[in-house]
Amino acid sequence: METNFTEQIIKQIINAWASNSKTISNFFTKYEDAYYLTEVAPGRNRAIYLLGHLIASNDSMLPMFDLGESLYPELEATFLRTPDKTAADTLTIAELRQYWETLNTTLAAHFDKMQTQDWMGRHNRVSEEDFALEPMRNKLNVLIGRTNHQQYHYGQLTLLTQKVPAV
Amino acid sequence: METNFTEQIIKQIINAWASNSKTISNFFTKYEDAYYLTEVAPGRNRAIYLLGHLIASNDSMLPMFDLGESLYPELEATFLRTPDKTAADTLTIAELRQYWETLNTTLAAHFDKMQTQDWMGRHNRVSEEDFALEPMRNKLNVLIGRTNHQQYHYGQLTLLTQKVPAV
Repeated sequence: METNFTEQIIKQIINAWASNSKTISNFFTKYEDAYYLTEVAPGRNRAIYLLGHLIASNDSMLPMFDLGESLYPELEATFLRTPDKTAADTLTIAELRQYWETLNTTLAAHFDKMQTQDWMGRHNRVSEEDFALEPMRNKLNVLIGRTNHQQYHYGQLTLLTQKVPAV
Repeated sequence: METNFTEQIIKQIINAWASNSKTISNFFTKYEDAYYLTEVAPGRNRAIYLLGHLIASNDSMLPMFDLGESLYPELEATFLRTPDKTAADTLTIAELRQYWETLNTTLAAHFDKMQTQDWMGRHNRVSEEDFALEPMRNKLNVLIGRTNHQQYHYGQLTLLTQKVPAV
């Protein structure tokens, strides 16, 4: 009989997300606050915007996974539906850094309690009919996608490094 | 009894890798060849270097997974151990594009044949002793990591877009 590795693999996927989140936390505590107001490349997003964007994107997993409401629903308009530098900043890097940490702790506590059947189940942005046809559109797939999304933007954030010394 | 979702989850992880690889293929066929000689940000890697880097990095999965020798071992020195713009280019973007496609086809054919026990087994950069202590250092974890690595660099590559029209 084949060993059931399901729980171990789910744990590996959660670990990859947590490890990437920690790397991003380290990036945002490494320099003086003013540093994060810099664009990652000429004319592109600033680091502070990308942090708000990652918070808003990951926060949406709470309602998608039926784990409750988003912690910071007010970030969606600014960081998911509006480009950077459209209006004056309403949040400081210190505030966003705190949101990011609180969100990661909240998500990690939920993920720790979720069972295999939860992860393999439908998320709230796919209908029951569509899920019956495409069972891979489960919660675990959302976490895999969000982890890749984080890495995509972390690759951009690292372009800022080496410009100024760490504090 | 709990359903064994192991094969489905492994398939989801392979799909995430394949989907990201395809996105990168599309990026590298979208513009004129000269475009890929541009740096992704001032003073940083050029797109052509990042493509060589991704090929060399993913190619190493073949020996790591006991699937044979690397297809392009000569790329390791240039794209993994030497920074960009150290010497004149020895390969054109057209050649690297072909390497990337051949490598992806080769890896996909191998991945399609691999069984759960293969994925959950040790890769060749971890000793039997270390693997006994850390069973999550398996082949599947390498694929998760390589997928994240691709996305990290794809996030950098997209900074080039919107500078010139697509061909």
